Amino acid sequence: MPTPIRVTIWNEYIHERQNPTVAAIYPTGIHGLLAEVLSTNDDLIIRTATLDEPEQGVSQAVLNETDVLLWWGHSAHDAVLDETVTRVQQRVLAGMGLIVLHSGHFSKIFKRLMGTSCALCWREVGERERVWVVNPGHPITAGISDCIEIEHSEMYGEPFGIPTPDELIFVSWFQGGEVFRSGATWTRGLGRIFYFSPGHEVYPIYHHPDVQRVIANGIRWAQPQEGNHTTPRHVPVDQAREKIIAHGGTVHLADGQLK
Amino acid sequence: MPTPIRVTIWNEYIHERQNPTVAAIYPTGIHGLLAEVLSTNDDLIIRTATLDEPEQGVSQAVLNETDVLLWWGHSAHDAVLDETVTRVQQRVLAGMGLIVLHSGHFSKIFKRLMGTSCALCWREVGERERVWVVNPGHPITAGISDCIEIEHSEMYGEPFGIPTPDELIFVSWFQGGEVFRSGATWTRGLGRIFYFSPGHEVYPIYHHPDVQRVIANGIRWAQPQEGNHTTPRHVPVDQAREKIIAHGGTVHLADGQLK
Amino acid sequence: MPTPIRVTIWNEYIHERQNPTVAAIYPTGIHGLLAEVLSTNDDLIIRTATLDEPEQGVSQAVLNETDVLLWWGHSAHDAVLDETVTRVQQRVLAGMGLIVLHSGHFSKIFKRLMGTSCALCWREVGERERVWVVNPGHPITAGISDCIEIEHSEMYGEPFGIPTPDELIFVSWFQGGEVFRSGATWTRGLGRIFYFSPGHEVYPIYHHPDVQRVIANGIRWAQPQEGNHTTPRHVPVDQAREKIIAHGGTVHLADGQLK
Amino acid sequence: MPTPIRVTIWNEYIHERQNPTVAAIYPTGIHGLLAEVLSTNDDLIIRTATLDEPEQGVSQAVLNETDVLLWWGHSAHDAVLDETVTRVQQRVLAGMGLIVLHSGHFSKIFKRLMGTSCALCWREVGERERVWVVNPGHPITAGISDCIEIEHSEMYGEPFGIPTPDELIFVSWFQGGEVFRSGATWTRGLGRIFYFSPGHEVYPIYHHPDVQRVIANGIRWAQPQEGNHTTPRHVPVDQAREKIIAHGGTVHLADGQLK
Repeated sequence: MPTPIRVTIWNEYIHERQNPTVAAIYPTGIHGLLAEVLSTNDDLIIRTATLDEPEQGVSQAVLNETDVLLWWGHSAHDAVLDETVTRVQQRVLAGMGLIVLHSGHFSKIFKRLMGTSCALCWREVGERERVWVVNPGHPITAGISDCIEIEHSEMYGEPFGIPTPDELIFVSWFQGGEVFRSGATWTRGLGRIFYFSPGHEVYPIYHHPDVQRVIANGIRWAQPQEGNHTTPRHVPVDQAREKIIAHGGTVHLADGQLK
Repeated sequence: MPTPIRVTIWNEYIHERQNPTVAAIYPTGIHGLLAEVLSTNDDLIIRTATLDEPEQGVSQAVLNETDVLLWWGHSAHDAVLDETVTRVQQRVLAGMGLIVLHSGHFSKIFKRLMGTSCALCWREVGERERVWVVNPGHPITAGISDCIEIEHSEMYGEPFGIPTPDELIFVSWFQGGEVFRSGATWTRGLGRIFYFSPGHEVYPIYHHPDVQRVIANGIRWAQPQEGNHTTPRHVPVDQAREKIIAHGGTVHLADGQLK
Repeated sequence: MPTPIRVTIWNEYIHERQNPTVAAIYPTGIHGLLAEVLSTNDDLIIRTATLDEPEQGVSQAVLNETDVLLWWGHSAHDAVLDETVTRVQQRVLAGMGLIVLHSGHFSKIFKRLMGTSCALCWREVGERERVWVVNPGHPITAGISDCIEIEHSEMYGEPFGIPTPDELIFVSWFQGGEVFRSGATWTRGLGRIFYFSPGHEVYPIYHHPDVQRVIANGIRWAQPQEGNHTTPRHVPVDQAREKIIAHGGTVHLADGQLK
Repeated sequence: MPTPIRVTIWNEYIHERQNPTVAAIYPTGIHGLLAEVLSTNDDLIIRTATLDEPEQGVSQAVLNETDVLLWWGHSAHDAVLDETVTRVQQRVLAGMGLIVLHSGHFSKIFKRLMGTSCALCWREVGERERVWVVNPGHPITAGISDCIEIEHSEMYGEPFGIPTPDELIFVSWFQGGEVFRSGATWTRGLGRIFYFSPGHEVYPIYHHPDVQRVIANGIRWAQPQEGNHTTPRHVPVDQAREKIIAHGGTVHLADGQLK
């Protein structure tokens, strides 16, 4: 059996403690429900982390033991410290997978990795959403039929301020007339990133078996890969693969660093 | 005749004033030479800006009057303030083109827009470089033969820590045995970005006519486009394109902002 | 003023002559209406061609004088000869733009250039379609608001059997619940290809000003580019850019051709 | 343990029987050597097939039992029947992986799937090649250092007439001064395609352990995925997911087929 994937589910964990509707749907928090559900997969080892924990739940030690990080935030994006964001970004670039959920589109870590606004249109009236597969054959779609029906959802609509995805996986239809690129992937450094938009907290979307399945598929897809991990470096002239002779001036020291 | 493109050439302008080799090659600065050369194009209006100017040369007023910004920095990346970077990034997302030159791969603005390390391998011994066209038909390659020969260049080698380019335009061959993705494009928001690696300051690379031509081509390619400029926004239920009825709880105020 | 773009609008021209509904909407054929409309653009020179003309309307001479070819076919895809398809394909690879309209998704030329099934889901009941811009800033979207409303349309739905587009421009919403990647681009050789799905012939979709505008934008985007046009070739050892010495056996003749 | 991957190594098997140099390097054929080497992997089940077998070695039965097909051809591309190509293409679109080796860039099946010329520059003088990893972290690069050194190789050079790869994995450096995109992937339908250029038959390139490793990695990467396999189809109005009412004329029969 392959080595299990170590998953950390991060949640700002605020609306579940403030808003009765949300509390009723997620009495143990969104992270609590997801942990319970994902733990039924033998190949996943689940832990959770929240904003109010030491080092905002994602210390270097936690990150070092995490293969794939799930990120759920909404009202407290600004409370996440820049140094926290930098720590997570570095770990993604070093190979950790990252799954950004729903309102996490506006998290500092997602904007940091994308370089764009990550803005979108929205409307919260509990309308119908259909999450259509547009990339059949992609492992994130395993076990999903042609679309996922979500009876009550928040509308997220185009334009979505993201870089062109490496892979577009899902496109959503909304009852009110909009569409949205609701599942997409990118690679940044050695790390794989999957954004998946369903999950507004006032509806029981993470109770939906297909939504749970997509997240589990996403974790497997985003796990660190065994590929080449070469680090960029200075290559002195005597280590050049062809024999060459140095020529001209320099702005560098002998070790390649700038003077 | 089409409206001219307003170009601002930004240079940290340090090595040209400190290093005699560089000063001899660029007595008026790299920005000075590029301004002189690019000004011969009737469709370009050229201005320059340097790090030591007010607001680091890129005030909001300057940016607002800039269609395409060229960025040359090497030893003073850290001196560029985060607020300067944010101002430039916002203008790129709003449609300004950005051409990042050579050591600008490590500038804060490029790293901000890419989300990655932007690191690479390097060796400064004046070896031969050939910049091969791998995207024939792309307008940035207009007037360029199968490759550009640069007699003395700094080696930049793979792995190059960038996101997958939207378009790969050039790949370089180096005498010492390496290759490098030396010309590539990305779109971020409404803005087009072109990275072009030749240009190490201790060799007269910006005096090379083909290098000059690629930069001029890049400016034309990167200029702001007339396309759709919709801004993401809250869409209230009474503005939905299909008639729908609100349902369920909320974490938003009536105007769509989070409570 | 720039050189005008020479456009050829190709139509199989069958349903307009057989089906009274279609005839009433397009009395001069779909090509006739598009020619009339597009001719109002000063930068476009319009000609039309139909399947029943000599060499199926796209002789080498016609292709040589065409910068951008529009393709409309539906019931007679199989009547297009393989040699016709090859002739058009070669011209696209050499730089001619190609705009494939609606049911042209199943044309031989589109399938030839894509390499895939190009199959899709469909339903012809005159439902509402909204064509959303998902790539703001792209020149094909110039002058288009956030979406195009089409009151009666044929549903085209995912999965759409195409290679990942180089650029995804539009995604459509359908009243019956589906979504579709309705505007997308690819480059093949030197030629640019734009597929745009609205246009079912039993509804007056090409009378819609926004649909006309997208097609005009697409023509301008797809026109041949001035970029590098190097032809792959044998490079004899004495033409190598670095001095090298031949070594080992061979399966080639001196001119590089296989024995 | 996961289900083994069923691999078929196809070879036109001509030069090994005609050219003494090639015969000395591959006494059992290129397919013979690759079969011997790849069989040492527990997770692969290897069979071979050659052009002179019934149905050109790739009958429907063989294809149905093949998860990943390797393709090596050079002098007999034209001998492969169009119906053979169609059979292989359909199986790729249905999910079979395809690994195209070296001169297979000009095979009918590769050109069919790419839609382009697949032409390139070449020179057969046994020069040095370095195959650089430009996509660290990609599973095809597992176990490979920063580059693969090949002492004697045929030069393949840009421009390479392919569509933009979904993923660029390797770029080669050649002693004579050229570069080449020597490893790249595409998805067509449900099938994954990997092109890998090293392998000219007059040098012992497939005896190189790193080259063997890349091919094994490629097979694992290209194996069929469990993802969604929805087939495009007509969706009658009474199966629409939202209630809608038919409107307007038609060019279809009740079952959705064209009249």
